[in-house]
Amino acid sequence: MLTREELIEFCKEARESYLDNISIDCVVFGFHEGQMKVLLLKNKEEEKWYLPGGFVLKPEPIEMAANRILKERTGLAEIFLQQFHVFGDPDRSKVHNEMYADMLPPEENWFSNRFLTIGYYALVDFFEVTPQPDRFSEVCAWRDMDDMPELQLDHGLIFKTALDTLRLQLNYQPIGYNLMPKEFTMPELQKLYETILDKKLDRRNFQRRILGFGILNRAEQPRKGGAHKAPYLYSFDLEGYKHALTEGFKGGW
Amino acid sequence: MLTREELIEFCKEARESYLDNISIDCVVFGFHEGQMKVLLLKNKEEEKWYLPGGFVLKPEPIEMAANRILKERTGLAEIFLQQFHVFGDPDRSKVHNEMYADMLPPEENWFSNRFLTIGYYALVDFFEVTPQPDRFSEVCAWRDMDDMPELQLDHGLIFKTALDTLRLQLNYQPIGYNLMPKEFTMPELQKLYETILDKKLDRRNFQRRILGFGILNRAEQPRKGGAHKAPYLYSFDLEGYKHALTEGFKGGW
Repeated sequence: MLTREELIEFCKEARESYLDNISIDCVVFGFHEGQMKVLLLKNKEEEKWYLPGGFVLKPEPIEMAANRILKERTGLAEIFLQQFHVFGDPDRSKVHNEMYADMLPPEENWFSNRFLTIGYYALVDFFEVTPQPDRFSEVCAWRDMDDMPELQLDHGLIFKTALDTLRLQLNYQPIGYNLMPKEFTMPELQKLYETILDKKLDRRNFQRRILGFGILNRAEQPRKGGAHKAPYLYSFDLEGYKHALTEGFKGGW
Repeated sequence: MLTREELIEFCKEARESYLDNISIDCVVFGFHEGQMKVLLLKNKEEEKWYLPGGFVLKPEPIEMAANRILKERTGLAEIFLQQFHVFGDPDRSKVHNEMYADMLPPEENWFSNRFLTIGYYALVDFFEVTPQPDRFSEVCAWRDMDDMPELQLDHGLIFKTALDTLRLQLNYQPIGYNLMPKEFTMPELQKLYETILDKKLDRRNFQRRILGFGILNRAEQPRKGGAHKAPYLYSFDLEGYKHALTEGFKGGW
């Protein structure tokens, strides 16, 4: 926890540097050992966790702000980030305000501003991330998506909205490039989809549909190993993948 | 065009009433005589058109602000509005700023603020709208989507992003309830999809797919008229429609 003096100093700097009413919150998804993970922060003495976030510098494009914030929390310079919603309830940051009300004079309390927060979600390689706490936290860690702690403010809603968006987008956009290793088997990719959707998928239908999108290359040789029926290895066809990312799967109409 | 005094008065009120760095811009789609239309505004003396928009009152939820702004422009109280993107380029409102720079002292020029704009799109019943100019415009009118005039600021990008979003969403959400009359034929609904997607669709595939979504009811009796083969009339099944709106079509995975 910051001291009162550090908080006052932070508020002074914030008023000079940042836009008054805008914040950014990020839902960072990773995939590890068949589990979807979410990157969260927490103070040691507090019960509630929160999403990585921050503010927008006065002359800064918002996408650049989101990238800067995530670089500080993950160490990653280039992240696939997707803006998904603005949360604009006037009471959404009230708790934050009250939290600092007894420590800060009202006119110096930056946190008493009304903040609209822009939600971004990111899909990252679990192994490349080095979680870094921010100045208000002592813990920055991956948590299992099916064992999420209580989140502060409206961060539970932000997380749920990001997950709902991701699930809908599975129907018309490719996924997995940043979540899977370079080479993977069809059952491994299916497991990713099943984990995000939280349901079992039919093996044949999955394979037929995913191959139909033209975003996968199959390696010449099956994976080596002792198994008597070695599985084929796949990798993403980057050209097809990127095309589908911007254009969407044309399977629709 | 407002006089200098009216502009100064507007800026004074705006500083007192609105959040400093947020605006809202709306892409309002209507469907009439087989054409998609977009609602736009313009000053008489200027060449460029712009999207209906406005600002957010200090204590106002953003969805309420968007509804208030659109009610002023259309007369409609309840509109299907969908937030689709925030446009946060720091230079996006520069032209606006320069436009008023010679009329207003810098410290009074509200338009010199940096505005992040939240984009909403709306689908409305063409016949229910009574277009109303705002205080900066003299014209508020429907324009054909395939004959769009040049738009000011980044409104061209905002319009294009709304249309791209709408096209993607056709793959997993129902559409048409606010755009079609109460009863319609299958070719009339297909025409709506073809107009939005700007391409011809196969009649049989369209009918099979749209009926599979469970959002349509077929009337007992075909439309009356002189035609020797009268077409069946359909209406939206509101329960199925609303469910699909929130849950998405489960045709996917």
